[in-house]
Parts: sequence; structure tokens; C-alpha cells
Amino acid sequence: MYKRWKAGLIRVVTLHDRLLAGMHGEIIMRKFPCLQVETKCIPDQYEGIYSQETKKIAIPKIIELAKSFQDIDVLIVSCADDPAVSELKEQLDIPIVGAGSSVAALASRYGKNAGVLGITDAAPPPYEQVFGENLINLGRPEGVNSTLDLMTDEGKEAVIRLAMKLKDKGADSIALACTGMSTIHAAELLSDKTGLPVIDPVTAEGLMAYYEYIKIL
Amino acid sequence: MYKRWKAGLIRVVTLHDRLLAGMHGEIIMRKFPCLQVETKCIPDQYEGIYSQETKKIAIPKIIELAKSFQDIDVLIVSCADDPAVSELKEQLDIPIVGAGSSVAALASRYGKNAGVLGITDAAPPPYEQVFGENLINLGRPEGVNSTLDLMTDEGKEAVIRLAMKLKDKGADSIALACTGMSTIHAAELLSDKTGLPVIDPVTAEGLMAYYEYIKIL
Repeated sequence: MYKRWKAGLIRVVTLHDRLLAGMHGEIIMRKFPCLQVETKCIPDQYEGIYSQETKKIAIPKIIELAKSFQDIDVLIVSCADDPAVSELKEQLDIPIVGAGSSVAALASRYGKNAGVLGITDAAPPPYEQVFGENLINLGRPEGVNSTLDLMTDEGKEAVIRLAMKLKDKGADSIALACTGMSTIHAAELLSDKTGLPVIDPVTAEGLMAYYEYIKIL
Repeated sequence: MYKRWKAGLIRVVTLHDRLLAGMHGEIIMRKFPCLQVETKCIPDQYEGIYSQETKKIAIPKIIELAKSFQDIDVLIVSCADDPAVSELKEQLDIPIVGAGSSVAALASRYGKNAGVLGITDAAPPPYEQVFGENLINLGRPEGVNSTLDLMTDEGKEAVIRLAMKLKDKGADSIALACTGMSTIHAAELLSDKTGLPVIDPVTAEGLMAYYEYIKIL
């Protein structure tokens, strides 16, 4: 139908397994067939971003990587923290999409109280920006310190328990705040368990990249 | 590829011209080919919604019309005020999408200060809900009282002047607040004039209906 758009996608973790690295891109291309996604991982950061310090280290790497893509129409920074997104908006003249601001935007449609559910105690900045003091943040799931912990049965149970608590506190939606939640299909699982809309970060960033495409059609 | 989704779309104005009535649906089907849109207009309201009173009169009509669609997967209320949207979310078990909450959600991705640009002095509730006191509202364009006024050269000039003022006041984006803005292609025009992201209501509601579709793929 229309010309496909080329999207560059940055993983903020070093992954040598191409299948694993390409997983976000695969989800996006399945849901948005007009986007052609090319993935690159930041170098030398095997544990990704999990603190202010690791975010600070990642930002110049993300900027350098962003500039290394050839002929892309849109750039996706596939991380709920939106690292380097504001810097890249200043420096590149293509649309820049961060996972965090995409999730927060989508969650806003379901009501003023969103529950944030990630793997850090602090909510990522875009969630704070959109929801302010109406954001419901109960910290990270018990025993979950990294995306690897999400893969275990104990990790998944802790995520479900936290989602139920966010619902009890009055959340209108659950805004997932780690792209690792996409890998474990948390949105589907938590939506079934809680009955609330649950926003998946990779779907959200894909939708916003698609928006940048169709808005000019 | 995938099965098409059937969307019901409600125009909150009585239009006997089927081409005119179907214009929002046509825009949506062009941008989101997997959505099949069926349009219905509320009866006996030739001037649409332009005040609290006309909104109140429209709400029961919208609810009745919403229930009259057969086998739809998603319902779009094509009005920036989101009339009857909260009521319909309680009463129907399909996703309900309002133009206003869709625009506000999309605008939130561009920064905390959105400029609202519609044809009323007060901002529609969803814009207030998402942006709170960071919403920049300078009232309606000079001399514009209805969507018909948007069609004139004077009306378009007034819209451009107001957009430039919103930019001067620090707007990160312009959140259009009347679906009549879609008909005059205001997003394209104002984006060219201001250099800001400008959110088109019909595109926004289409995107959110599409989201409800692809989130479960």
C-alpha cells in the first residue's frame, strides 16, 4: 500500500544474541507492518540501565549510535526512562520516540491515576511528567532487581501481586515501566488478572513511531 | 494480513450529506486500512455541540446511537469534548475512544505545556485532565464561533494567529480541540507555520482505535 518507513531502534543493553536483540523490533514489525525496524545495541553495557549512573553512562552511547543509522525515518529509544530522547530531539531532524513517554501518553487516556510498574523504585521521568502527583508508585516488585528476575516464576508472581496492589490503590491503568515487561508478556497477563488497561512499552513505542508515519499521510 | 476491525463512529452533529458525514471515517480508513468505519450522526442537532447545554442534550443521543451499532469492535465518539465517553465505558464492553482524550494523550509526548486550539473559550475536559495548569489556553480564534467559520479565509487566518500566540507563550505542541480542524487540514497548515507538533483530532482518535486493535495481536 504505502511505502514502508525505516525505523532505527536502540536497545540500551549490550546483547550479542541477534534474536534477543531483535525481539522489540520483531514485536513492532508484527503489529505495524509498514515499519521496517533496524536494531542496534549500545556497547559495553551488559546490564543495561538500572540506575542514574548507568543512565548517565548510556546517554552519549545512545546519541552516537543514533547518528550511525543510515536513512531512517524515525528513531526509537527502546527504554522506559527515555534516555537521550530530549538530547536527540535537539540534534536530529527526524521524529524521536521513547518508550517511557509513549507508555505515559497512552495511559493518560484511561484516567488521571496511573499505576507505574517497572523494576526500579523511582518512576521514570516521563511518567512523573504526565501524571504528576496522581501517579501511583509502590516501588518495584518484591525481589525483582533486573529484567532477568522477571523471567522466574517468583518474579512473575511478584509482578502480579504489585499490579493487584496498584489496582487496590485506585489505578485506572497500569503503565509498565520496563521493556523487559514486554518480553514476559506482562501486559496480557496483568490485564487478565486485574481487568485494567495495561500499557506495554514496546507496543507503545511502536504505536508512536507509526503515528509519526501516518500523521503526514 | 489480519482480520479488519469494525469501528463505529459517532458524529455529534446532524448531517444528511453522507459524504460530509463520512469524512472522519474516510480519513481514518486511509490512515488505518485495517479499520472498517461505519458512521452514524446524532439526530436533530444541526449545529452540533458548542456549549454545556448542547453537550448535555447530545449525551443521551450518543448513548442510544452507540448501542444501535451491530457487531462493532471499537466505538469512536468523534468530538474533542469526549461527550458520553465515560458513560459508554461503563455501559458497553468494547473499547470506547474519544477524540479529546486521544489528542491530549498524543500531545503529552511532546512536553508538559500544550496549547489548546478549538472553537470554544473553555478547553474540553480531557485537555484539562492531562495537562492541568500547564495547559495554555488563550480562548478561541478571533471571530470563530462555529466550524463553519473555519472554512473562510478570515477564519483560517485567525487560527494561524492564535497558533503563533500559543507558540509565543511556550507551547511544546498544539492540541487541536475541534474535529472541524481536521476538515480544514489545520494540523498540516499550523505545523508548517509554527514548526510545532500539531495534533489532529481525527488522526488521534483513529490511532487510539488502532491501538485497541493491535494491543491484543
